[in-house]
Amino acid sequence: MSPPPPPDAAAPPNVLAARYASSVLRELWSPHRRITAERELWTAVLEAQAGLGVPVPEGATEAYRAACDRVDLDSIRARERITRHDLAARLEEFNALAGYQAVHRGLTSRDVTENTEQMLIHRSLGVLRDKTTAVLARLAAGAAEHRDRPLAGRTHNVPAQPVTFGKRLASVAEETLLAHRRLESLLADYPLRGLKGAVGTGQDLLDLLGGDPVKVDALERRIARALGFSQTMTAVGQVYPRSLDLETISVLNLTAAGPSSLAATLRLMAGHGLVAEGAQEGQVGSSAMPHKTNMRTCERINGLGVVLKGHLTMAGGLAGGQWNEGDVSDSVVRRVIFPDAFFACDGLLEATLHVLDGLQVFPDALAAEMEAEEPFLTASGALTAAAAAGMGRQDAHRIISSYTARALAARRSGETYDWREELGNDPDFPLTPRRIREAARRTGTGRAAEQVDAVVAQVGEVIRRSPEAAAYRPEPML
Amino acid sequence: MSPPPPPDAAAPPNVLAARYASSVLRELWSPHRRITAERELWTAVLEAQAGLGVPVPEGATEAYRAACDRVDLDSIRARERITRHDLAARLEEFNALAGYQAVHRGLTSRDVTENTEQMLIHRSLGVLRDKTTAVLARLAAGAAEHRDRPLAGRTHNVPAQPVTFGKRLASVAEETLLAHRRLESLLADYPLRGLKGAVGTGQDLLDLLGGDPVKVDALERRIARALGFSQTMTAVGQVYPRSLDLETISVLNLTAAGPSSLAATLRLMAGHGLVAEGAQEGQVGSSAMPHKTNMRTCERINGLGVVLKGHLTMAGGLAGGQWNEGDVSDSVVRRVIFPDAFFACDGLLEATLHVLDGLQVFPDALAAEMEAEEPFLTASGALTAAAAAGMGRQDAHRIISSYTARALAARRSGETYDWREELGNDPDFPLTPRRIREAARRTGTGRAAEQVDAVVAQVGEVIRRSPEAAAYRPEPML
Amino acid sequence: MSPPPPPDAAAPPNVLAARYASSVLRELWSPHRRITAERELWTAVLEAQAGLGVPVPEGATEAYRAACDRVDLDSIRARERITRHDLAARLEEFNALAGYQAVHRGLTSRDVTENTEQMLIHRSLGVLRDKTTAVLARLAAGAAEHRDRPLAGRTHNVPAQPVTFGKRLASVAEETLLAHRRLESLLADYPLRGLKGAVGTGQDLLDLLGGDPVKVDALERRIARALGFSQTMTAVGQVYPRSLDLETISVLNLTAAGPSSLAATLRLMAGHGLVAEGAQEGQVGSSAMPHKTNMRTCERINGLGVVLKGHLTMAGGLAGGQWNEGDVSDSVVRRVIFPDAFFACDGLLEATLHVLDGLQVFPDALAAEMEAEEPFLTASGALTAAAAAGMGRQDAHRIISSYTARALAARRSGETYDWREELGNDPDFPLTPRRIREAARRTGTGRAAEQVDAVVAQVGEVIRRSPEAAAYRPEPML
Amino acid sequence: MSPPPPPDAAAPPNVLAARYASSVLRELWSPHRRITAERELWTAVLEAQAGLGVPVPEGATEAYRAACDRVDLDSIRARERITRHDLAARLEEFNALAGYQAVHRGLTSRDVTENTEQMLIHRSLGVLRDKTTAVLARLAAGAAEHRDRPLAGRTHNVPAQPVTFGKRLASVAEETLLAHRRLESLLADYPLRGLKGAVGTGQDLLDLLGGDPVKVDALERRIARALGFSQTMTAVGQVYPRSLDLETISVLNLTAAGPSSLAATLRLMAGHGLVAEGAQEGQVGSSAMPHKTNMRTCERINGLGVVLKGHLTMAGGLAGGQWNEGDVSDSVVRRVIFPDAFFACDGLLEATLHVLDGLQVFPDALAAEMEAEEPFLTASGALTAAAAAGMGRQDAHRIISSYTARALAARRSGETYDWREELGNDPDFPLTPRRIREAARRTGTGRAAEQVDAVVAQVGEVIRRSPEAAAYRPEPML
Repeated sequence: MSPPPPPDAAAPPNVLAARYASSVLRELWSPHRRITAERELWTAVLEAQAGLGVPVPEGATEAYRAACDRVDLDSIRARERITRHDLAARLEEFNALAGYQAVHRGLTSRDVTENTEQMLIHRSLGVLRDKTTAVLARLAAGAAEHRDRPLAGRTHNVPAQPVTFGKRLASVAEETLLAHRRLESLLADYPLRGLKGAVGTGQDLLDLLGGDPVKVDALERRIARALGFSQTMTAVGQVYPRSLDLETISVLNLTAAGPSSLAATLRLMAGHGLVAEGAQEGQVGSSAMPHKTNMRTCERINGLGVVLKGHLTMAGGLAGGQWNEGDVSDSVVRRVIFPDAFFACDGLLEATLHVLDGLQVFPDALAAEMEAEEPFLTASGALTAAAAAGMGRQDAHRIISSYTARALAARRSGETYDWREELGNDPDFPLTPRRIREAARRTGTGRAAEQVDAVVAQVGEVIRRSPEAAAYRPEPML
Repeated sequence: MSPPPPPDAAAPPNVLAARYASSVLRELWSPHRRITAERELWTAVLEAQAGLGVPVPEGATEAYRAACDRVDLDSIRARERITRHDLAARLEEFNALAGYQAVHRGLTSRDVTENTEQMLIHRSLGVLRDKTTAVLARLAAGAAEHRDRPLAGRTHNVPAQPVTFGKRLASVAEETLLAHRRLESLLADYPLRGLKGAVGTGQDLLDLLGGDPVKVDALERRIARALGFSQTMTAVGQVYPRSLDLETISVLNLTAAGPSSLAATLRLMAGHGLVAEGAQEGQVGSSAMPHKTNMRTCERINGLGVVLKGHLTMAGGLAGGQWNEGDVSDSVVRRVIFPDAFFACDGLLEATLHVLDGLQVFPDALAAEMEAEEPFLTASGALTAAAAAGMGRQDAHRIISSYTARALAARRSGETYDWREELGNDPDFPLTPRRIREAARRTGTGRAAEQVDAVVAQVGEVIRRSPEAAAYRPEPML
Repeated sequence: MSPPPPPDAAAPPNVLAARYASSVLRELWSPHRRITAERELWTAVLEAQAGLGVPVPEGATEAYRAACDRVDLDSIRARERITRHDLAARLEEFNALAGYQAVHRGLTSRDVTENTEQMLIHRSLGVLRDKTTAVLARLAAGAAEHRDRPLAGRTHNVPAQPVTFGKRLASVAEETLLAHRRLESLLADYPLRGLKGAVGTGQDLLDLLGGDPVKVDALERRIARALGFSQTMTAVGQVYPRSLDLETISVLNLTAAGPSSLAATLRLMAGHGLVAEGAQEGQVGSSAMPHKTNMRTCERINGLGVVLKGHLTMAGGLAGGQWNEGDVSDSVVRRVIFPDAFFACDGLLEATLHVLDGLQVFPDALAAEMEAEEPFLTASGALTAAAAAGMGRQDAHRIISSYTARALAARRSGETYDWREELGNDPDFPLTPRRIREAARRTGTGRAAEQVDAVVAQVGEVIRRSPEAAAYRPEPML
Repeated sequence: MSPPPPPDAAAPPNVLAARYASSVLRELWSPHRRITAERELWTAVLEAQAGLGVPVPEGATEAYRAACDRVDLDSIRARERITRHDLAARLEEFNALAGYQAVHRGLTSRDVTENTEQMLIHRSLGVLRDKTTAVLARLAAGAAEHRDRPLAGRTHNVPAQPVTFGKRLASVAEETLLAHRRLESLLADYPLRGLKGAVGTGQDLLDLLGGDPVKVDALERRIARALGFSQTMTAVGQVYPRSLDLETISVLNLTAAGPSSLAATLRLMAGHGLVAEGAQEGQVGSSAMPHKTNMRTCERINGLGVVLKGHLTMAGGLAGGQWNEGDVSDSVVRRVIFPDAFFACDGLLEATLHVLDGLQVFPDALAAEMEAEEPFLTASGALTAAAAAGMGRQDAHRIISSYTARALAARRSGETYDWREELGNDPDFPLTPRRIREAARRTGTGRAAEQVDAVVAQVGEVIRRSPEAAAYRPEPML
C-alpha cells in the first residue's frame, strides 16, 4: 500500500495563486497576512481607545501587540468549528494568546473584516497599477523600436491598408493608458468603510466613548490613516456598498483588455510565421509534434481574460442585492473574487511582460506578406485619386471593386492578374495605369509614425512619475 | 378570415424601449435620429473639407444639407439587401437624395459610424447622469423627512439595532453619489475615436488633404467639437477600444446598484406592512386576489438590474477580443447593448423616481415592529455596559447570548421571558436588571441623524450645480 | 421645419427581430400572436368549464371566440396605463370586446401568462431544433464533399498535422449533434406549469368546480393538450421553476457553439485566402477599400454568440432567486430574453445556413499552404519512426526539435534548411534522411475519412427522421 | 523579527475546496490524484499496446506501474519550469521514475489530459447526483412532515393565499427533481474524447499500430472502459467540444436553483421568526450583538449560487470559441472551473443538507401570522362566490378591492376594519357578510396535500433506486 500523499499534494491548490500570480500578491492574500492585519487593526484601535480615555487593563496593549505574529491556523480552525463565525474564532484566539479580552470593544465583526479587506484590495490595486505601468513601458519601447516597420494592416482579419508594427503596439498602449488612468482614479477615490458598528450608526463606539462623536471621528480617522486611506464613508450600514466591488472588478477587466487583444493578435500573427514568443532552452511546444512552438503565454493571457469575465459576473451578482442594513450572503463570493480576480489580473500582466520581453518579430516574413498583399493594400489610393480626378466616389468604388475582385479570384487559383494595368486601360476609368500606380505609392502608413510618437510621449509621462514601477521585471514563469 | 394584424402588432417591439425607457432616450436612439446624425456628420465633414481646399462641386453642400431630414427607412433597407453593408446603403441613399457623390471622401465607414455612436452614447450618459441627480434629490429629501424616524435595523435580515428610515435612504444616496461621480468622470474623460480612416493611419484623409497633417488635425478637431467632444484618441485602428464600451456598461451597472438594493429592501418592508408603493386609482394588484397591492415598480427595478448584468456580460465579450486593426464581429453585440443598456438603466431610474415620489411609510407599523423587537435591538448595550463594568467582553457576550436565546425561544412559542430581569439576577453577571435597562435606553440610533445630514449636504452640492436635473419629474409609467 | 418622422423611424426597433431573426419567429413572438394566444386559452378554459358544469351565460363562449382576433394594442395600452397590470388590462379589453365578464374564473394571471409563454417557448424550441437539423444537413454535405481535401491542420493556431477540410466540418457537425440531441430531449421533457392558481394550490378552480379534484385535473389536462404538452408540473407556486428558463437559454448557447467555432475558423482561413463567404452581386465589402470582401456573415455568427452569453447571464439571474410562492421581479427579464434569445439563436442558425450554402473553398490555396508546411506537418512521423527504431521517445523528441527549430528559423529569414537531411546525417539519430522522408510520407490524414463517414451517417439518421427540416432554405439576409 | 509563516499559512488556499467542498471532491481533484490518474492511463495504454503487438521493453510495464504512486510535486514543478509544458514535465518525471521512455507512444498531450479530466468530471457529476438524491430525500421527508402545516402563502412577497409549509418544500423538491434528471441524463450521455492524436485523425497511433484501424479502435475502447465510459466521440480535433463543458456547468447551475430559492425563502421567514437554522452549542451569531442568530448556512447557499453563475460565464467564454483543430487558450479557464464549480456545487449541497437536517419550524409563529393575515388570504373566495352568484367577475373584483384596501389602510394605522362586514352590507354586492365568511372558510390550502403526496412519491422512486445516496449525511461544516 502506498503512503498517504504529502499535504500539498492532497489539497487542491488555488490554481490562480499557485501558477499565475506573483509572490507579492500571494503574500498579500496569504492567511497569515490576513490574520496579522486584523490583529494590528485590533491593537491599533485598542491603543487609540486608551488614548481617548477608555480604561484598558495594564499590559493588555503590549500583550496583544506581542501576539500579532503568532499565527496558528489549525487552532483558529478548531475554534471556528465551534463558533461557526470566522471572526469570532479569530478574536477568541487572539484573546487567548494575549490573555486579555480587551480588544473589539465597541466594534462589530465587519468593523474588522471590511476595513482589513479594503486595505488589501487597495494595496492590490496599487500593485496592479504599477505592473500596468511596466506593461506600458514595454509597449512604448516596442512601439518606438518598430515605429516604422511596415505591416499589412488588417480589418475583419483581411489585409486592408499598410500600418506599422509600432502603431499596432501603440494602439494597445493607448487602450492600456485608459485602464491605467482608471486604476489611478480608483486608487485615489477609494473610500474606506470605517468604524461604523453593527448597523452603521456607530452606536456602540459612541457609547464606549462617552457619547462624544468627536472622539468617534478621531478614532476612525486615526485607523483610516493607518490603513492608508484619506477618506471614509458616512452613512453605510453593516457593509460598504458592493457596487464598489463591482467597480474594482470592472477596472481589472479594463486592465486586461489591451493585453488580451494584443495576445489574440500575436497568436494570429504567429500562426503565419510573423512573430514568435521566444521559447526558452528546454521548452517543449508539443509532446507529439517536435516542431511546434506555441504561443502558450499569449494563450494564457486570453484565458485569464476569460476568467476575469467570470469574476465580473460574480461581482455583478453582489451589487444591488443588499437587504436592509446589509446582507452577508455575499461572504463566499467575496472570499473567491478577492483575491482570485487580483491573482488573475496579476498573472495576466506578468504574462504580458514576459511576452513583450521575449517577443521575436521576423522582418523578412513581414516584408514578404506586405509584398504579396501590396496590390490590395493600396487599392484605396486609386479610389482617392479617381475621386480627385472628378469621378463620383461611389462610381469609382464600384469599378475598382470589379477589377480587384478579378485579381483576388486569380490569386486564389495561383494565377496573376494586374488589376491596376487592366483598370487603367478601361475607358470608363479616368486614370491611366501609371497614375494608379503613383496613387498606390502614396498609400503608405499615413500618420502611423506620428501616432507612435504621441503615445510614446504619453507613456513617458507615466514612466517619469513611476520609474521604478516601469522598470519592474516579471518573476520566472511556470 | 381575420384581417392581417396592423404593423405595430406584427413586429416584436424593443420591449425595453417601448415599456420602460423614457421618450428622450427613445428619440435619441430612433432610426430616424441615427440617420440624420450620420448625414449631419457627412455634411459637416464636406463643409470642412471645402474650407480646407478640397474641391467640392457647386451646390453639393446645400443639396446634402437639404437631404438630411428626408429619411426613408424602406428605401435604405432595400439598398442594404444588395450592398449587405449598412453604411454603404445609407451612403448610397444620401447620395441619391442629394444628387451628388461628394461626401465620404477620405473616410471609411467607421469614421462615420463610430463617431456617431459615440456621440449618442455620450449624450445618453448625460441623460442618465441628470436622472441620477434627480434620484439623489429625492433620496436626500426622503432622508431628511425621515431623518429621525426609528426603524428596526436588520443585518442578515434579522433585527439587529435601531436605525432610522432616513439613514436607510441616506445609505442608498451615498452609494448613488459614488455612481454619480463615476458618470461625471466618464462624461468628462470619454474620448472620441475621431477621423482615423480604415486602419487608423488617416492615410486617405491625409492623401485628400495634400499630405498635410495640420489640415487633418484641424478637420478632426472641428468635427469632434461639433459632436460635443473635447478630446480624440490618437493611435486607434479601425475602431475605438472596446474596453470603453465595457466601462460604459459597467458605470450603468454601478448606477443601478443603489436603487436595486433600495427596491429589494422596500419589497421586504412591504411584505410586512411597513411601507407601500402607493397604488393609483384603478390599479390592479392581482387578477385573482382583490386585496393584493404589489411592489411592482420595485420589482421592475430589480428586474432591470438583472437585465443590465446580462449587458455587462455582452460588453465583457467585446473587450479584449479585437484582432489586428479591428474586429467587427462585435457589430451585432453593440447594436443590442447600445441602446438597450441605456433603455434598461433609464427605465430603472424612471421607476426609482416613481417609487420615491409615491412611497408611503407607515409610522404606526414601524413603531409596532420597534416595540416588539426592542429587547433584542438593544442587547448590545448590555454587552458594552458589562465590559465597562470590568467583565471580559467575550465572557459577557457568552452569558448575555444564553439569556437572549431563551427569550427568543419563548417568543417563538408565544410566551414571554424578560431576559434583562433574569440576566440581571444571575450572580455571574455584574449588572442589575435596572442597570441593564439603562444601558438599553442608551442604545439608540447612534449617529444616524448626523450621517443623514452629511449625506444630504453632499447631495445638496450636486443639486446646486444642476437644479433643473434635480427637479426632473418622471414620465407616466406603463 | 422638417415633418415628424414616420412611426417606424421613430421607435427603436427590436434589432434582433428586425435584422437577424426569420419571419416564423418574428410572427410567433409578435404582440398580435401573444394576445390571440391568451384569448384562445381563456376561451378554451371557458368552454371546458362549461362542459364541467360551471354555469356560463348564454352566448358568452361564442362572443369571446369571435373577439379573439380583434386586437387593438393602443386600446390595451390605454387600459394598462390605469390598471398598471398588463394581464388585467388585456382581460378588461377582452371582456369589453365580448360584452361579458365570464372568462378568467378560477384563474390567476399567471395561469394565463405562464402557460401562454411556455407554449411559445416550446414552439420556438421546435423551430430551432428544425433549423439545427438543416445546419447538420449542410455540414454533412460539406464534410462529404471535402472528405478527402487535405488541409494543414492547426492546433494553438500553428500548423500541426494534416487533416481534411471534410473532417473540420465533421467536427462541427459532431458538436452540433450534441446540441441537437439536447434540443430534442428538452422538447420531449419540457413540462407545462398548468392551471394552478395564485399560490399553486388550485384553490379557486377547486372552489369553482365544486371541490372536485378530478374535474380540476380534467380541465388542466385538456388545456395542456391544446397547448401541445403531454406533461404538467405538480407542486409549483405562482410560477414554474425558473431553472427551466436557465436550461432553455443554456441549450440555445450549446446550439450556438458549433457554428460559432466554425465561423471563427472560417474567418481565420479567409484571412489567408483559403476560403470566402461568397459575396453577392452588388455587395460592398468596405466603403473605403474597394478590394475588401469581409466574412461579415461569419462575424455576425460570432457576434450573436456573444449576445446569447449575455442572455445566459440574465437567465442565471432568475434561477434560484425565487421568494416564497413566487417572485415576479423577473417579469422584465423574461420579457427581454423571451423572445430575444430565440431571435439571436435563430439569426445565428440562419446566418450559418447562408455561410454553408455560399461557402467558397479554394483548393489551390489550400494545396499551396500544405506544401509550404509539409516539412513541419509530418515531423511527428519522424518521432514515431525513431521510437520504433529503438530510440527513447523523449530523446528522439529532443533531437528532432532541435533540427526543426533551425528549419523554422531559416524560413523566417527566407532561407531554406532541409531539417530531414541534416537530422538524418546526425550520428546520434537512428534514421537516415531517406527513412525520415518515408516516415513523413506515411504521415497523412489518418482516420479523417472514416470519421467523416461516421458523422455523415449519424447526421443521415437525423435527416431521415425530418427530411423537410433538413431541406429548409434560409430567408434572404439583410 | 518574527519567524517565517508556516507553509499553509503562506499560500492562499483554494477557498472553495478548503471551506465548502467535502472530502470526496477534495480528494478527487487533488494534485496527487490527478497525477496518479494520468500515470494509470499511460500504463494502461502501454499494456494495451503491448497486447496489440507494439514492442515494449522488458520490465517497462512493471516499472511504470510501480512508479504510479511516487508523486513528488516539487520535482515536477522544477521540470515544468524548464519545459514550460505541464504534461511534458509530468511525462519526463514518470519516465525518470520508471527508468524507461516507453509510454506516450502514438499519443499527444491531450490524449492524456482530456481523457483524465473527463474521467474526473464524470466522477464528480456522479458525486453531485448522489448528493442531490440526498437533498431530495430530506426535502420529501420535510414535505411529508409539514404536509398539512398551514402558512401564509406569499407572491410578490405579499400575503396571498394559504399554502402549507410542506407544499413549499415540495415545490423545491419538484424543481430539484428536474435537476436530478438532468444530472442523470448527462452522466449517461457524456462522451469521452478518446485517443485521437494531435489533430484528431489518430495518425500517430495508426502508424504505431501498423496502420490497422481495428487495433486503434480496440485500444481506444479498452481505455474508455477503464475510465468508466461507454461511448467515445468520433471526429474531434485536439480537444473535445467545449460546449460539453458549458453543459456541465449549466447543469450544476440548475442543481443549485432549488436549494438557492429555498435558502432565500428561509432567510425571509427567519427574519420574521417563523423558522431558524438551528444553531449549535457555542455558535456565535454576531460578535457585537449577543442576541443574533443568523441564517449563515442559507446565506452560504445563496453565495455559492452566485459563484456558480460566474463559472457559467467562464464556461460560456469557452464554448464556441475554438480555432481550427483546437484552441488551447482555454487551459487556465478549465483549470479554474474544473474543479472550482464542482467544489461550489458540492458545498452548496452539503450546506443544504445541514439546513434541512437542522431546520427549526415554529408552529405558533406560523399560526400567528396566518391568523393576522386571514382576512386577506381568503379574499379571493369572496370573488369566486360573487361571480358564482352572478356578479360580473371584473365588477366583483373592483368592489372587493375597494373594501380590502380600506382594511389594509386601517391595519397600517393600528385600527380594525371588518371589510367582510362592510362589503356584505353594501347594496351593490350580492353577498351578505355571512355568505362572505362562508366563502372565506372554503378558501383553504386547496390541493396542497395531494401535491405533496405526489412529489413525495416521485422522490420515493429516486430513493428506491439509490438508498445509500439518499441516506448520505453531510460532513461537519466549518
